[in-house]
Amino acid sequence: MGLFKSNRVVYKPVKDINLGPDSNEFYLQANVKAPRMTGIVVKIVTWLLESRIFGALLLYILKGNNLIHKHVTNADLEEPPLYVPLHDFEDHKEQEVKCLDFDLTPQEKVQVAINCLPTTYDKPINGTKPSLNRWTIMDYFNAYSSGVITPNMLLISLFTLSIFKWCLLGGTKWLHKQRPFTDDACCVKRLRLCGAMLVGKTNMHELGAGTSGINPHYGASRNPYDASRIAGGSSSGSAAVVSAGLCPVALGVDGGGSVRMPAALCGVVGLKPTFGRIPHDGVIPLNWTVGMVGILAGTVEDSLITYAAISGEIPSHQPSSMPAKINLPRLPLTKSISDIKLAKYGKWFDDCSDDVRICCSHALKKLQGRYGWKIVDVTIPEIEVMRLAHYSTIGAECHTSLDSFRDKNLAEFGWDARVALKIYGAFSSMEYIKAQKIRNRQLQFHRKIFSEADVIVSPTTGVTAYPIQSDALKTGELDYVNGAALIRYSIAGNFLGLPAVTVPVGYDKSGLPIGLQFIGRPWAEATLLHLAFAMQAICLSEYRNPAIYYDMLRTK
Amino acid sequence: MGLFKSNRVVYKPVKDINLGPDSNEFYLQANVKAPRMTGIVVKIVTWLLESRIFGALLLYILKGNNLIHKHVTNADLEEPPLYVPLHDFEDHKEQEVKCLDFDLTPQEKVQVAINCLPTTYDKPINGTKPSLNRWTIMDYFNAYSSGVITPNMLLISLFTLSIFKWCLLGGTKWLHKQRPFTDDACCVKRLRLCGAMLVGKTNMHELGAGTSGINPHYGASRNPYDASRIAGGSSSGSAAVVSAGLCPVALGVDGGGSVRMPAALCGVVGLKPTFGRIPHDGVIPLNWTVGMVGILAGTVEDSLITYAAISGEIPSHQPSSMPAKINLPRLPLTKSISDIKLAKYGKWFDDCSDDVRICCSHALKKLQGRYGWKIVDVTIPEIEVMRLAHYSTIGAECHTSLDSFRDKNLAEFGWDARVALKIYGAFSSMEYIKAQKIRNRQLQFHRKIFSEADVIVSPTTGVTAYPIQSDALKTGELDYVNGAALIRYSIAGNFLGLPAVTVPVGYDKSGLPIGLQFIGRPWAEATLLHLAFAMQAICLSEYRNPAIYYDMLRTK
Repeated sequence: MGLFKSNRVVYKPVKDINLGPDSNEFYLQANVKAPRMTGIVVKIVTWLLESRIFGALLLYILKGNNLIHKHVTNADLEEPPLYVPLHDFEDHKEQEVKCLDFDLTPQEKVQVAINCLPTTYDKPINGTKPSLNRWTIMDYFNAYSSGVITPNMLLISLFTLSIFKWCLLGGTKWLHKQRPFTDDACCVKRLRLCGAMLVGKTNMHELGAGTSGINPHYGASRNPYDASRIAGGSSSGSAAVVSAGLCPVALGVDGGGSVRMPAALCGVVGLKPTFGRIPHDGVIPLNWTVGMVGILAGTVEDSLITYAAISGEIPSHQPSSMPAKINLPRLPLTKSISDIKLAKYGKWFDDCSDDVRICCSHALKKLQGRYGWKIVDVTIPEIEVMRLAHYSTIGAECHTSLDSFRDKNLAEFGWDARVALKIYGAFSSMEYIKAQKIRNRQLQFHRKIFSEADVIVSPTTGVTAYPIQSDALKTGELDYVNGAALIRYSIAGNFLGLPAVTVPVGYDKSGLPIGLQFIGRPWAEATLLHLAFAMQAICLSEYRNPAIYYDMLRTK
Repeated sequence: MGLFKSNRVVYKPVKDINLGPDSNEFYLQANVKAPRMTGIVVKIVTWLLESRIFGALLLYILKGNNLIHKHVTNADLEEPPLYVPLHDFEDHKEQEVKCLDFDLTPQEKVQVAINCLPTTYDKPINGTKPSLNRWTIMDYFNAYSSGVITPNMLLISLFTLSIFKWCLLGGTKWLHKQRPFTDDACCVKRLRLCGAMLVGKTNMHELGAGTSGINPHYGASRNPYDASRIAGGSSSGSAAVVSAGLCPVALGVDGGGSVRMPAALCGVVGLKPTFGRIPHDGVIPLNWTVGMVGILAGTVEDSLITYAAISGEIPSHQPSSMPAKINLPRLPLTKSISDIKLAKYGKWFDDCSDDVRICCSHALKKLQGRYGWKIVDVTIPEIEVMRLAHYSTIGAECHTSLDSFRDKNLAEFGWDARVALKIYGAFSSMEYIKAQKIRNRQLQFHRKIFSEADVIVSPTTGVTAYPIQSDALKTGELDYVNGAALIRYSIAGNFLGLPAVTVPVGYDKSGLPIGLQFIGRPWAEATLLHLAFAMQAICLSEYRNPAIYYDMLRTK
């Protein structure tokens, strides 16, 4: 009966919790109790989960073993639930910004964004420019303008390479039958208006229900730095094409790190804007309170241009408490922004592989050294509880959103997606509401931290891209241990609706990319992009290729 | 297996639904399939529900039989969930109002409110004034000022009559042990600041989990018009003391008609303000998204004074999209407000007892006749679905809010509350989220209706006060059939956060009071109070006692 015994956790009032570096709040490491599963094992587990009696029992055991019962189901907390992380606008007077009015057209917004870029950005392409030899938006623009290439030539070469498979809605085999294509999503429309060439839809983890990007229907997206490894997910294909230099920019939806994690694993920039910043019209609604369209790009500059093109809610949708303007950073950063404070929670920052920790710490020191910014040591309590609450939330919402379709298309689901959806459906209304109470509580913690610091800094993922095992290819793979390590730093961005950006800052021993993450105050994307640009500039000047970088670290 | 078969309902897009009088939308009458239960039957049902296997089965059958499965669980709807009915402020330019700034003190607000009242209001008490012989706030004020009575004399007489039993928190035997009294609720503090004498806490339906006001611990609140009948609930005692003339005003919390229903059944005015209008600090949080402190008063004028005293969120709590001002109506209504439009959905309006229908129709005709206002015939689709969605919502939230306390205090719960809480705990996260999708859908319907009309008019309850049966006194009573008839008109006020007011407009054959309800646009309490005052004036001039009124109706 040990399995069925669950302890109640009585949460202390937020006001009684010390968020300083001397806090005695315990850092709870993720302790996932679910074995890696592929092949026949996944099929058996699916069958068990989908049976009425065994399924209920198994789900009960899974929730208990993985501390959902303890930290969510049986949580005693006083906070009222916070259902939607839509933030009122507070003017923190971001420094060195240009302001975009909502009523500008996408083209006009992009023009303002280009004017924000450093003057060195707009120069003809050549082999030595510091973009890891990927072409930027402006490289394409210049190449088309000068006639070096034409869009058609480019398209033909891409198709000749057979890079873009015909990948259907949400990485599934069936969603297009239930939800026919009728129109572009709003963000895609805005990109087209600016002259963007849409070259294809990319592969992704089926229904965004995993972090590896291994898709049993369309194949596993492979990491351009090592094709035997995952690209990360769920926006695996987006990260891979940008990383490989096939596109300067791709879009994804970040509901639990799904843009930032693959961006970090593939060595590109990933921006998840504030919840509500980009209209979701036309985006598959797999959840309603955690996801946001995000941008994957080779450079911070290209993230900025794309961000300008697609942000700003449609006026009719915009609650009046949202900002009516969007700040863009003027790049490069001048020394005049001298008082940025970066909050760092040491135990959390260090809860990653040695390579990730060494690399991210090094990058942060460099950044701090260059600009003289202050690190504020903080404690962010209950981060692992937030992960469980976020999982319950995104699970319940995804299960609801697919409810009309699930049963009649079940045979066309991948096995791992079937397992995920069965677990997603296991939450009671009370568990969902308590998860929202935890959301409120975490928002209060983060607000306090943002009263002392401008951003929170952390690694983007706890591990780098891990190998794709061949037994995972046909059935998909369930690997909640690696999943938890990947997602560890992503949750606040989704559950609290905060903007966050990842920048590549180095490589592990195997030459696999590592990302550093900045999490910002609501609506403070400009500050994040400032920091990301500063970080990028340091990294680009310091090392050009993985081998040199890792040698340098080792000899320190 | 018939019980287990549930049909999926695919809801049409809102834009395709005709809300006009010629709509072919089906009016679904409540069809509650649960027998009235008291005594030993309630105990057996409680025992069954609380057993693990039988309980799950029984809840499944109950939910299926009562159309929760069909209309909520298996609903296919495209709307995103709307979790909290907190409305942006839209200025509809209410006519003939005075505007209260949030930064006025409660005393200053009350002074403005008194200046809004008709000049005839502030006159010495005498037996003939049209207040059904109840003393108003101003009567007490004048009596104290002139020395006719002192507050002490009044208190002594109330205590001598033993009217106020010692009734504990939330109508329970145990909640005070878990949640000790430490301070007045914010609304109570504001009343004290204005010099209000708080003479006692009144009885209520245990935990607000029913509509009859029959409380097994503290006795059934009895209707002052007929002591063998219910006062209605959950704020049963509040309605009874005001109706009996013991207090000019009482407070309650209206989460599913809990202020308006007992007000109507006891022949007093009941005002439920817009969601978020009154701070809930210090109020027991039995739910988070449907309840609002409301006011029960003998007259519209006293509702207005009390409303002015307690409304206005605390600035730190107030989302920036809420109005920073409160409109109060200048009374009496002048002819200049000539263009008010009242929406009426005939099938719904008429879905009540003959007496209620005749009385409410008569009152509405009189009102219309006097002011020349236009009735707009409309169709409000899916009202019964909204009731089911609201029930799932308030149930899930109440279950969550009491989760920390339930098990250890179970023996001190009344039997009917135990059954209610067990049913409340039966909803899945998907059912909760789908209920929020239904909320969004209904809000869209109501917005459309409010683009054509200023208020929606309906009876307040489908039946008048029904008899208290002696077998209910000890165990409490489960009577979902009468409950559904009582609550039929209340839901939009709670689920959509709309303000609503009930005014007594007459009596049934047995001399029991009947209320007419106006539901308004968000933040448009002034318009509602205008209408309520106009209605009250007509009723008071037309008849003074139930017998005359009913004779008059019969001879028409």
